[in-house]
Amino acid sequence: MRSSTALLVARAGARPEPTPIDRRDLRPDDVAVAVTFCGVCHTDLHAVRGSGGPYPLVPGHELVGTVTAVGPEVTGLAVGDPVAVGNIVDSCGTCEACLADQQNWCREFPTLTYAGRDRVDGTTTLGGWSTEYVVRETFVYRRPAGLDAAAVAPLMCAGVTVWEPLRALGVGAGTRVGVAGVGGLGHLAVKLAAALGAEVTVLTTTAGKADEAATLGASGVVVTTDADDVAGARGTLDVIIDCVPVDHDLAPYLGMLRADGTLCVVGYLGTTSVDMMPLLQGRKRVTGSGSGGRASTQEMLDFCGEHGITADVEVLPATEVGTALERLGRGDVRYRFVLDLEALEASTP
Amino acid sequence: MRSSTALLVARAGARPEPTPIDRRDLRPDDVAVAVTFCGVCHTDLHAVRGSGGPYPLVPGHELVGTVTAVGPEVTGLAVGDPVAVGNIVDSCGTCEACLADQQNWCREFPTLTYAGRDRVDGTTTLGGWSTEYVVRETFVYRRPAGLDAAAVAPLMCAGVTVWEPLRALGVGAGTRVGVAGVGGLGHLAVKLAAALGAEVTVLTTTAGKADEAATLGASGVVVTTDADDVAGARGTLDVIIDCVPVDHDLAPYLGMLRADGTLCVVGYLGTTSVDMMPLLQGRKRVTGSGSGGRASTQEMLDFCGEHGITADVEVLPATEVGTALERLGRGDVRYRFVLDLEALEASTP
Repeated sequence: MRSSTALLVARAGARPEPTPIDRRDLRPDDVAVAVTFCGVCHTDLHAVRGSGGPYPLVPGHELVGTVTAVGPEVTGLAVGDPVAVGNIVDSCGTCEACLADQQNWCREFPTLTYAGRDRVDGTTTLGGWSTEYVVRETFVYRRPAGLDAAAVAPLMCAGVTVWEPLRALGVGAGTRVGVAGVGGLGHLAVKLAAALGAEVTVLTTTAGKADEAATLGASGVVVTTDADDVAGARGTLDVIIDCVPVDHDLAPYLGMLRADGTLCVVGYLGTTSVDMMPLLQGRKRVTGSGSGGRASTQEMLDFCGEHGITADVEVLPATEVGTALERLGRGDVRYRFVLDLEALEASTP
Repeated sequence: MRSSTALLVARAGARPEPTPIDRRDLRPDDVAVAVTFCGVCHTDLHAVRGSGGPYPLVPGHELVGTVTAVGPEVTGLAVGDPVAVGNIVDSCGTCEACLADQQNWCREFPTLTYAGRDRVDGTTTLGGWSTEYVVRETFVYRRPAGLDAAAVAPLMCAGVTVWEPLRALGVGAGTRVGVAGVGGLGHLAVKLAAALGAEVTVLTTTAGKADEAATLGASGVVVTTDADDVAGARGTLDVIIDCVPVDHDLAPYLGMLRADGTLCVVGYLGTTSVDMMPLLQGRKRVTGSGSGGRASTQEMLDFCGEHGITADVEVLPATEVGTALERLGRGDVRYRFVLDLEALEASTP
């Protein structure tokens, strides 16, 4: 076994503590990654607080680092390569979805980066808040040179989650895209849509965000609590990427869509109430998206490399994970915390 | 004014009674239609029972007949032409939707065939349960020769309501289409989808419908209350046309869709609960549709003429409208009642 140090959550609600863990020895198609940075996603917060077992648990599924070892069957990566790993580390590989390079929709459910069940030995996967990760080459991505490593980390979950629907919905020059909820997901949706050539409008409940929106690349803002703003935006958008992380009324957004427009929910994964009339009047669509397949994940990274796009991050030493979780819990971050795992190594005896 | 006889509902909940009514004199672009048959839609039942004012009210928006007079600017129709009229008789004509031939989505709302407000004189429109209808040529459709007139009537609302999403979603040879709820709308969805070349599966809560489904053109049946049936159908359908007229759980249908598949709700127009997870896992879509634009309405009629498709109807004399409504209220019809308005004329002093 390979030993490393991880931020381990011993039981639901426990504080993540630096703890030695074991990783498997490399299988023939495995890669060992020295993790330098890993993002802090809302999913991690939920997992720490108790909805993400089994415990003990190591969160983290937006990780970047460098290859330190490869198995004998690894062909595309070598020691020293800058890489990144997202929230999926394996899939069945044979179902219709996997064959269509949508491993995120694997019929047998993809193996998640943490709290998943390894398809070979049945062990529970331990996440990226760790100094090392061992993973099949297939699910390791080439990280573009020239991008700040810490700021790449959130691209691996937040980034690809908004990238995939933008691409699937054909967003490009001339597309009018609304982005609702500008946080970890939303700020990347604005940047990516704008870089794709779209005209981007930020949809927010808070007035006074015009400067912030413009900085990200948006050309306008609609304050959704302002009836005049909402009326003025009626029927103007082709696509809305809805990053609001809690249950909310979809009706104002549906009203802003043009005929045949699409509202894609990526922030809220629960059950919500949908009024059929606005769908009927213009054949508008509600869809969802989450994570990404292998091809689109690499495509997103390459696009970010070409366009110089990264997340806006606040980097904290791994030992300050408690601060990151507490501030994330009350929305106090622009726009994503990233943990520095190199600091973790130093702090452990 | 032109006088005719209609089944008039004096007040909410009142019985429709044969009553003389006035229609406007023909405007330059108007056509007078001698109505021979008119369908009985669920909307009519609701209108009679009280949710469709203003009253007095004449229901009926699936009407067929023959042109008896034309205004001086009418160019495409002549006295004696077999025609049909649906649930829209006017629209603004200038908004984006109207210019895209989607008058059903008119930004100013289309003028409905009854209980609408005439755009010229502001009067309330009186529906097709009547011996004559006066309507702009623009919203009169050529009725294919060779089709039974009574059985054409339901095509004008039920037919086009399912036709438009089938076409918009690209249903054709090889498409796997599910039809949920086989009544007035659903039985036409099965016939039309099958004629378009699709492989059609009927989704029903009731076992023992295989013969009925096959007669309509379906190649299979899934009993949605049978867990094995539902599991066997998982991920198999490209499109589901959901004609169930009451609130219901969409989850079993979403589970039957393939990745990137679409559930189109046409039967229920209220608010329902939608779980985002099945939308996310495969980027499945929920959309709606209702009625149709001018071009697609005529296209649907022409297609039905070519393929010999009509509704399965039970024709009753107009004076037996009470029976039709009572039986429709308890779902006792295969699949649509049609009123014979010629009989109405005879019964009125």
